[in-house]
Amino acid sequence: MGLLDRIDEPRDLDALTPEQLTALAGEIREFLVQAVSRTGGHLGPNLGVVELTIAMHRVFDSPRDTLVFDTGHQSYVHKLLTGRRDFSTLRQEGGLSGYPSRAESEHDVVENSHASTALSWADGIAKANVVRGHSDRNVVAVIGDGALTGGMAWEALNNISAARDRRLVIVVNDNGRSYSPTIGGVAHHLDTLRTTQGYEQFLDWGKRTLNRSGPPGRFAYEWLHGLKKGLKDVVAPQGMFEDLGMKYMGPVDGHDEQAVERALRVAKSYGAPVIVHVITEKGRGYRPAEEDVADRFHGIGPIHPETGLPIAPSRFGWTKVFADEMVQIGRRRPDVVAVTAAMLQPVGLLPFSQEFPDRTFDVGIAEQHAVTSAAGMAFAGLHPVFAVYATFLNRAFDQVLMDVALHRAGVTFVLDRAGVTGADGASHNGMWDVAMLRIVPRLRLAAPRDESTLRAALRAAVDVDDAPTVVRYPKGSLGLDVAVLETVDDLDVVAVTGPEDATRRVLLVGVGPMTQTAVDAAATLGEHGVRTTVVSPTWILPLPSALVKLAGEHDLVVTVEDGIASGGFGALLGEHVVAQGHPTPVLPLGLGTEFLDHAERPDIVAAQRLTPADVAGTALAALTRES
Amino acid sequence: MGLLDRIDEPRDLDALTPEQLTALAGEIREFLVQAVSRTGGHLGPNLGVVELTIAMHRVFDSPRDTLVFDTGHQSYVHKLLTGRRDFSTLRQEGGLSGYPSRAESEHDVVENSHASTALSWADGIAKANVVRGHSDRNVVAVIGDGALTGGMAWEALNNISAARDRRLVIVVNDNGRSYSPTIGGVAHHLDTLRTTQGYEQFLDWGKRTLNRSGPPGRFAYEWLHGLKKGLKDVVAPQGMFEDLGMKYMGPVDGHDEQAVERALRVAKSYGAPVIVHVITEKGRGYRPAEEDVADRFHGIGPIHPETGLPIAPSRFGWTKVFADEMVQIGRRRPDVVAVTAAMLQPVGLLPFSQEFPDRTFDVGIAEQHAVTSAAGMAFAGLHPVFAVYATFLNRAFDQVLMDVALHRAGVTFVLDRAGVTGADGASHNGMWDVAMLRIVPRLRLAAPRDESTLRAALRAAVDVDDAPTVVRYPKGSLGLDVAVLETVDDLDVVAVTGPEDATRRVLLVGVGPMTQTAVDAAATLGEHGVRTTVVSPTWILPLPSALVKLAGEHDLVVTVEDGIASGGFGALLGEHVVAQGHPTPVLPLGLGTEFLDHAERPDIVAAQRLTPADVAGTALAALTRES
Repeated sequence: MGLLDRIDEPRDLDALTPEQLTALAGEIREFLVQAVSRTGGHLGPNLGVVELTIAMHRVFDSPRDTLVFDTGHQSYVHKLLTGRRDFSTLRQEGGLSGYPSRAESEHDVVENSHASTALSWADGIAKANVVRGHSDRNVVAVIGDGALTGGMAWEALNNISAARDRRLVIVVNDNGRSYSPTIGGVAHHLDTLRTTQGYEQFLDWGKRTLNRSGPPGRFAYEWLHGLKKGLKDVVAPQGMFEDLGMKYMGPVDGHDEQAVERALRVAKSYGAPVIVHVITEKGRGYRPAEEDVADRFHGIGPIHPETGLPIAPSRFGWTKVFADEMVQIGRRRPDVVAVTAAMLQPVGLLPFSQEFPDRTFDVGIAEQHAVTSAAGMAFAGLHPVFAVYATFLNRAFDQVLMDVALHRAGVTFVLDRAGVTGADGASHNGMWDVAMLRIVPRLRLAAPRDESTLRAALRAAVDVDDAPTVVRYPKGSLGLDVAVLETVDDLDVVAVTGPEDATRRVLLVGVGPMTQTAVDAAATLGEHGVRTTVVSPTWILPLPSALVKLAGEHDLVVTVEDGIASGGFGALLGEHVVAQGHPTPVLPLGLGTEFLDHAERPDIVAAQRLTPADVAGTALAALTRES
Repeated sequence: MGLLDRIDEPRDLDALTPEQLTALAGEIREFLVQAVSRTGGHLGPNLGVVELTIAMHRVFDSPRDTLVFDTGHQSYVHKLLTGRRDFSTLRQEGGLSGYPSRAESEHDVVENSHASTALSWADGIAKANVVRGHSDRNVVAVIGDGALTGGMAWEALNNISAARDRRLVIVVNDNGRSYSPTIGGVAHHLDTLRTTQGYEQFLDWGKRTLNRSGPPGRFAYEWLHGLKKGLKDVVAPQGMFEDLGMKYMGPVDGHDEQAVERALRVAKSYGAPVIVHVITEKGRGYRPAEEDVADRFHGIGPIHPETGLPIAPSRFGWTKVFADEMVQIGRRRPDVVAVTAAMLQPVGLLPFSQEFPDRTFDVGIAEQHAVTSAAGMAFAGLHPVFAVYATFLNRAFDQVLMDVALHRAGVTFVLDRAGVTGADGASHNGMWDVAMLRIVPRLRLAAPRDESTLRAALRAAVDVDDAPTVVRYPKGSLGLDVAVLETVDDLDVVAVTGPEDATRRVLLVGVGPMTQTAVDAAATLGEHGVRTTVVSPTWILPLPSALVKLAGEHDLVVTVEDGIASGGFGALLGEHVVAQGHPTPVLPLGLGTEFLDHAERPDIVAAQRLTPADVAGTALAALTRES
């Protein structure tokens, strides 16, 4: 790995010859395949941006110039070129983050992994540069074609296009698919630019011509721009970006480092917002990824690097149960339709879409539209099921509240990856959903604890036609069903421990997958002579009134949930217990109101003091204090 | 009012001659000016859509065809044409809503007054029509040019443009300004369509030619489309909408009912998504509105109809204090900049913008971009102040959480119209902000109670450079400053009542403008022999630890806030009191977790049991129960 080892910071790229840069790109690809095969991570996106990232760091001067990466999972090459070569503990506690991280490097700016934000970040930074008199600093935003379908990107483009005084370069990294093939008019537009017959010739011819055109600069830009204008009937239809008043350059072959570099130098010299349209191939240079049509190499677990086959079996137990039950519901109910925001496969809607293609709607990375169009579908007689990662629903809170709940729309939200997800870091944990959704009037939320309760909850959810319903479950595999001892007032009792005649009576409430934690904690409490009952309500919003009554019959209530504790389900129960005049203290255990660094889920659970021993210890300490 | 009185439902329009339609439009304008002058309401927007709404109801068959109005405040004409002519109690309890209302009419669909949602609603309804085999039903969405700057609209357009099988007509109601002049590239694009030299001639010529073109139909559309294409070098540059693959018709003179009607008939016959670009004039036909450049007639209180001058003095006490303090801060701090989402004047940023135009950023109706670009500005060394109606911040929850808080950005949010706003109905009340924002790590929130605390809170907020800060205050006028008896551990004590040696000790916590309610309630409690202390913490997030301690020293704590009670500030205090092991019950009083119908603020406060008598009564009842 001769060349890569010598790159400690971006300026080390300056002296390399074109041949050395090509060799460096090869080394980086080899490094990525080997390293990410071992740890898991986002392989495909990073293989696609090797030359682009090299070119960016040669043309721009980070951190004086600011580079922002939309969604952030394509920043591995950027990490390598800014002196971070230890990928052995990627996405593990204490290791490199899978996204940019300000704690790691002054070259990292945006840590948020939610899509479509980069242009807004860039606009803000560019505005500030002007106000502060740093008008010579450049801001470069890299955004995928998929993220352009998000409304935020449009809001930003609308603002950026009105500016004439900001040094802002937008690199559209166009690989023709976000997670799944990009949806809608933008994709069509980019596709036309990409696939028109003249395109291949244009690239070749443009490359030859540009090679002869001397040093880049304003003149070269105008020439290129004129070229594109002149060729537009051959190469592309009218430019959407130009209608917004923004300069457009491209398409550029993203795997020709020299071509990208030339385009970026011209863009840099322009001195006002400009879009550079770069065509890349996700997974480039790694045959298993290049040959895979299902985009399985977007984000991976550990794989065998030669074959690309996973080392561990599939992790998506909860998702698979949902996928199966959804198909069964679809067969029974012709009015049930599926909605996804560019995540058909990850959220488990692929089987439904194969059986019911006309009842499946992929709206692109556009959670707001997903929610409000679902409200429209409900108005017109359908029952939409929007399956989405829990963390991404945050982006559509207003629409859940004002379009679905206010209008009494029967829309079901299925929140995958609820709770601690771990390796993806702070912005992927699905820990805000219950606290956010409990303030939505009329909303009903289920947190199933196992396969049976998941299936039953989903069936019940799609039967509600006058309010939002939510079913949330975590990432990962499913254990066996939790045994139910008895069901009292609709509350499932899953464990009773300790002597029947004990003086101290504790109620543990396990929420969803934390039920097993509560059961294990109850064993310990029972051994300490505490009579402990564990209940596990599947439907937690609205709060079951039987639970309030039951809480009042105990000396102490401890709730265990895998969302934030303050403002969460246990806190809600506590409010109701006080309002009913019960003196029973309710201790809500859950995650702290803080951002969690990337780590394995069990380590985070332990750090958050949510192990069975922690729960038992908290209960015992409280009992001591009470008595 | 001969003609209008005979319109009880849309089909009554069918028999009217063109001359009668012109007369009807005049009657409607006269009615609107007279009626809205008395009650207040959205005058300007409705005067602009008189002919458009008549044409829509003549061409389409509501409710079989679905008409949706973006933002909804331009639906008065629609109400008149669907049999609702009693405007005497508009926006008052029991009277007509200022927005569409399903409870009022089967012709009303979307009640949400947050902008940019209509295209998503329309897309969903059109999709459902196809799935359900109602492919002959049309969906018509009316959206202003301002609302097109919102990201949701883009997400929807991107989806709609990909559809070929949906009968969906998008009417862009282009008056060149949303609340203030429309910002950014979209505005520029529409502006070019509107103002190019050839436009006037085109309208005239097109009108004459279309009049001769016989019955509308597919052929006519193609002809019109070809016409526009052919004329594009004269009339307009390339069509942004056509780049998305969507058919575009226009521009059409929105005050020529016959022209609008012809365009809509062609659009209807097309059978796939089509955009009709209609040019209207806000305030059309009412001279005080036509002559006003500041858009003061967008939403009004009662006015003298002849002059347009307000009957009551200005209502914006809190806003004016903010406006003034913001200018003073701006003079002292060159790094402080202002951000607004198309509400420069309503949120009080006009004075700042006049003194610091280069430090004022109007991003259009684009709350998401406002927040994330503010995070970018903070990263690059500025301190942005984003002033926004409390209810609209809901749309940017994800960005507050992930872009501002996660990145420790020093951004200040000023939430105007926090609490009960009243007449604008369910979607305008700023009642969700505290419950939503308390789950954002690191965030600090101030709820000032009067002018002095507002000024101090704002000054303190802009001094925080590593976390989001929020200052919230209500709509309306300000009273005198509340007198502070003493300040203990940073907590302002504003009243102490009842005998010092009383056996029962109550702590009342007044949040912001509800402080006066708490003071008045304390008087009653004192008369009942209860020793009552009222504190009013300005900074309520994070929860002041002194308040938890103080709460533990009382027999009962009652909090009073003008946001939702469950999950709000008082509930947060309750959590902490339990966690500290205090047995003191905390009763959080505030709004119910429900949607509030339009009514006067005092009536809503009474209905929500938040008068001083209610607060005192709740405390007394709880004391009785406790003892």
